[in-house]
Amino acid sequence: MSKQRILIQLDSDKHASVFDGVVAVDSGVDHLFQYSQVSVDDVEGLVHGAMFTRGPQDLHQTAVFVGGSDVATGEALAEAATNCFFGPMRVSVMMDSNGANTTAAAAVLAAAREMNLNGVEALVLAGTGPVGLRAGRLLATQGARVKLGSRSLERAQQAAAAIQSQVDGSEVQGVATATGEETLLAAKDAEVIIAAGAAGIQLISKSVWEQCEQLKVLIDLNAVPPLGIEGVDVMDKAKADGQQILYGAIGVGGTKMKIHKAAIASLFESNEQVLDAEEIYSIGESLES
Amino acid sequence: MSKQRILIQLDSDKHASVFDGVVAVDSGVDHLFQYSQVSVDDVEGLVHGAMFTRGPQDLHQTAVFVGGSDVATGEALAEAATNCFFGPMRVSVMMDSNGANTTAAAAVLAAAREMNLNGVEALVLAGTGPVGLRAGRLLATQGARVKLGSRSLERAQQAAAAIQSQVDGSEVQGVATATGEETLLAAKDAEVIIAAGAAGIQLISKSVWEQCEQLKVLIDLNAVPPLGIEGVDVMDKAKADGQQILYGAIGVGGTKMKIHKAAIASLFESNEQVLDAEEIYSIGESLES
Amino acid sequence: MSKQRILIQLDSDKHASVFDGVVAVDSGVDHLFQYSQVSVDDVEGLVHGAMFTRGPQDLHQTAVFVGGSDVATGEALAEAATNCFFGPMRVSVMMDSNGANTTAAAAVLAAAREMNLNGVEALVLAGTGPVGLRAGRLLATQGARVKLGSRSLERAQQAAAAIQSQVDGSEVQGVATATGEETLLAAKDAEVIIAAGAAGIQLISKSVWEQCEQLKVLIDLNAVPPLGIEGVDVMDKAKADGQQILYGAIGVGGTKMKIHKAAIASLFESNEQVLDAEEIYSIGESLES
Repeated sequence: MSKQRILIQLDSDKHASVFDGVVAVDSGVDHLFQYSQVSVDDVEGLVHGAMFTRGPQDLHQTAVFVGGSDVATGEALAEAATNCFFGPMRVSVMMDSNGANTTAAAAVLAAAREMNLNGVEALVLAGTGPVGLRAGRLLATQGARVKLGSRSLERAQQAAAAIQSQVDGSEVQGVATATGEETLLAAKDAEVIIAAGAAGIQLISKSVWEQCEQLKVLIDLNAVPPLGIEGVDVMDKAKADGQQILYGAIGVGGTKMKIHKAAIASLFESNEQVLDAEEIYSIGESLES
Repeated sequence: MSKQRILIQLDSDKHASVFDGVVAVDSGVDHLFQYSQVSVDDVEGLVHGAMFTRGPQDLHQTAVFVGGSDVATGEALAEAATNCFFGPMRVSVMMDSNGANTTAAAAVLAAAREMNLNGVEALVLAGTGPVGLRAGRLLATQGARVKLGSRSLERAQQAAAAIQSQVDGSEVQGVATATGEETLLAAKDAEVIIAAGAAGIQLISKSVWEQCEQLKVLIDLNAVPPLGIEGVDVMDKAKADGQQILYGAIGVGGTKMKIHKAAIASLFESNEQVLDAEEIYSIGESLES
Repeated sequence: MSKQRILIQLDSDKHASVFDGVVAVDSGVDHLFQYSQVSVDDVEGLVHGAMFTRGPQDLHQTAVFVGGSDVATGEALAEAATNCFFGPMRVSVMMDSNGANTTAAAAVLAAAREMNLNGVEALVLAGTGPVGLRAGRLLATQGARVKLGSRSLERAQQAAAAIQSQVDGSEVQGVATATGEETLLAAKDAEVIIAAGAAGIQLISKSVWEQCEQLKVLIDLNAVPPLGIEGVDVMDKAKADGQQILYGAIGVGGTKMKIHKAAIASLFESNEQVLDAEEIYSIGESLES
C-alpha cells in the first residue's frame, strides 16, 4: 500500500490559515496536520517528526508548508526547517507566508504573458514589502531592468542592493515614490508597473501613469479600495484599456491559486524540493505552456 | 474530480470539542479543520479563508460549524461568520455550542411526537438558560402557550419578552419556580414539561407534578443525578408511567444525535444555509416522517 | 457503512507530535484529531466526547493516544482517560509519551532475540528514567534478575522497589553507577546491558564492559554522540563484535516503529484495550514470531 500524502502546515499565526488548508486539500493532500503559533524554536522537533518516521523511499509523501501572515517569520521558519535536513533525510518544503510567493509569481507571469521581460524596464511600487521584493527579484531573474519604488529612498536602495546580490548580473535600482512627481519620474520609461502595496492605499494616479509612453502592462495586487493603481478594477484580467493591459487583484488571483495548487502537488514528487519565489515561479511558467 | 467536504470547526474552548469532531466525521465530512480558542476577532480571517479558496460552484463543499461550551460566545461567533458573507460569496454555517440547538430541537420533537403542540400549554423549567430559551422558542413557534420558569421572576419575564419579540403572535409568560409552591402553580395546567437545567439539580419533585392533571409529557435533559424531574430515569424514552410519557436525557440523546448528523450533512447541500434552532428543528421534523 | 477510524492524540507539549501523527496515519487511522497542551483537567471533556458519540458497537473505531515529551504527565493523562470509563462505555487507550513504551519494548525484545531472558542477569543503565524503568520492568516480567543503575544509589533503590512491588516474584536491585569502578561492579555478571540514558552522555566505557565475562548483548538507546555505550554504533543491529551482540539506537528503531504501528492498529480491534509497557511488549512479541 503506498503511503498517504501528509502535509505539515507550520503557521506563525494564532490559527493556521484556513485558506492554505483548503488549497492543500484541493491539491490532493490526504492528511493535513495544522500547527499554529509556530516559532523558530518549535521547528526542529516538528520537522524531525516528519524526517524520522517514514523510510527514505517514502519521505516524498510527507511535506512541510510554511505560512502565516508574517513573511519575515515565515522565512525564518522555512530556513529552520531546511537546516534540519542532512543527506537524504529531508522532506520537501514550500514557503508562502501571506501568499507572498504565489502572488508575486502570478503577477510577474501576467506581465510575461504580454511581453518578453528580458531587457524591459519594470517598476514595482511598494517594492520593499514582501510581495514587492519577490516580484522585483523575479523580474530581475527574467532579465528586466527593475526599479523598486518606496516612500523612503534609503529603504528602496537597500532592497535593490539585496536583489542585486541575489541575482547575478541584475540591474535593480531603488527609487523614491513618495510624491506624484517622484512616481512619474520613476515610471516614465517603464513598460510594466506592478503595485504591491497594502490594502486600501493608492500608489499611482491615472493622470500620472497616462503620461508614461512606454507603459504596456499595469498590475495591481491590492483588492481593497482605493486600489493601488487608479483606473484598474479588482476584476480586471488582461483588460485592454487604450494601449495598456490591466490586471486587478482578483484577475491575478486565478493564476495565483493555480500556482499554489500545482506547487503543493509538486511537493510530493520528490523529497528534495525547497519551493521559494523562484521555484514557485518556474511552476507557474510550466502551467502557462 | 468533485471537491472534498471540508468542515471548519470554530470552537471557543481551550480544545475544540471531540464530540463535535466525531459527529462531523460520522456525517460524511472528508476533512475536519479544528480551531480552538476562537474569539470574535479571529472569525473574519478564518471565514475569508473558507470563502475565497473554492469557486462559487464548489463553495457548498466547505462549511463552518460553531461550537464550544459557551453558548453566548457561540452566538457571537456565528454572527461574526455570517457577517463576512456578501452576495454568492458565502458558506453554510451551523451553530450548536454546548449542543444547545440539537438538544432543544430533540426535546421539542419528543413532545411533538405525543401531541399536536398547537394551543398546548408547555412549561420549560430553567427556561432562561441556552437550552431552555431555545426549547421555549421552538415550542412557541409550534403554537404552544409557553411558560418559562426561573428562580428569578425578573429573568423569566425578560426571557419571555425576548421570545415574544422573536416569534410573531406567540404567547410566552415568565414565571417564578424557586419553590415547590411556585413550581406547582406554574405547572398546574401544563400538558408538557421540559426541564433544561444544570447537571445534578432537581427542578420539580414527583409529588408536585403528580398534582398536575393535564400533564402528558415530561422531558428531562439533565443526565447527572439528581435529575431535573424526580421520577424520570435518564434512559427513559417515551416510557409510559400512568398517564404520563417520560423522556430522560439519554432517551432524548438518540434523536439529538440523529439531528446533529443530519444537520451537518445538510450543510453541504448548498452554500447558503445558516442553521440555528429553528432550521435545526425543521431538519429534525423531516427525520421523523 | 462501517465507521471510520478516529484517533484522538492527547499531547502535553506546545504542539502535538508530528512523529506520532505520521505513525498514526501509517497505521491506518482515517481521521487524526490532534490536541496540544493537554493537561489532566482537560482529559475528561475530551474523552467523554470520544465515549458518548458512537454507539457501543462502534466504540472500537475511536481510540485515544497519549503522547508528549514528558512521560510523567503522559502517565497522568492516560490515568485520567481510563478513569472516565465505566462498564462498556470506554475506548482503547495507548500511552507512549516520548516513545518510552515502544522504545523499552523494542530494546527488551532485541535482547530476547538473543537469549531466553528467564534467570538471566541484566543491567539497565540510567534505570530510573522513564525508558530505563520500563525496560527494567519488562526484563523483570520476563524473569530476568535486574539491576537498575543510577548515579544515585538511593534513587536506584527506590526505582527497584517500585518494580518489585509491580512484578510479583521479581528480583530487582538498585545499584550505583556513578564511577567506572561502580559500573564495573554493577556490570560484572550481567549477560545483558541496556543503556537508557539521555542524549550525548556516555554511561559505560568499552574498557569496562570488556571485563564483563558473561556479557552477550549490549543495547544503547542514545542516538546522539557520545553514545551511552562506548564501542556501539548508532546503526548497529545485532552486530557481532567478538562474543558480544551490539544494538544501537537506530538499530533498535526499526523494531520500535513496527511495534508502534502494530499497537496503534490493535487499538481498533476492540474498545477495551489499555496499552502500556507490558501490553506493548506483548504486541512486539507477536511480531517476532
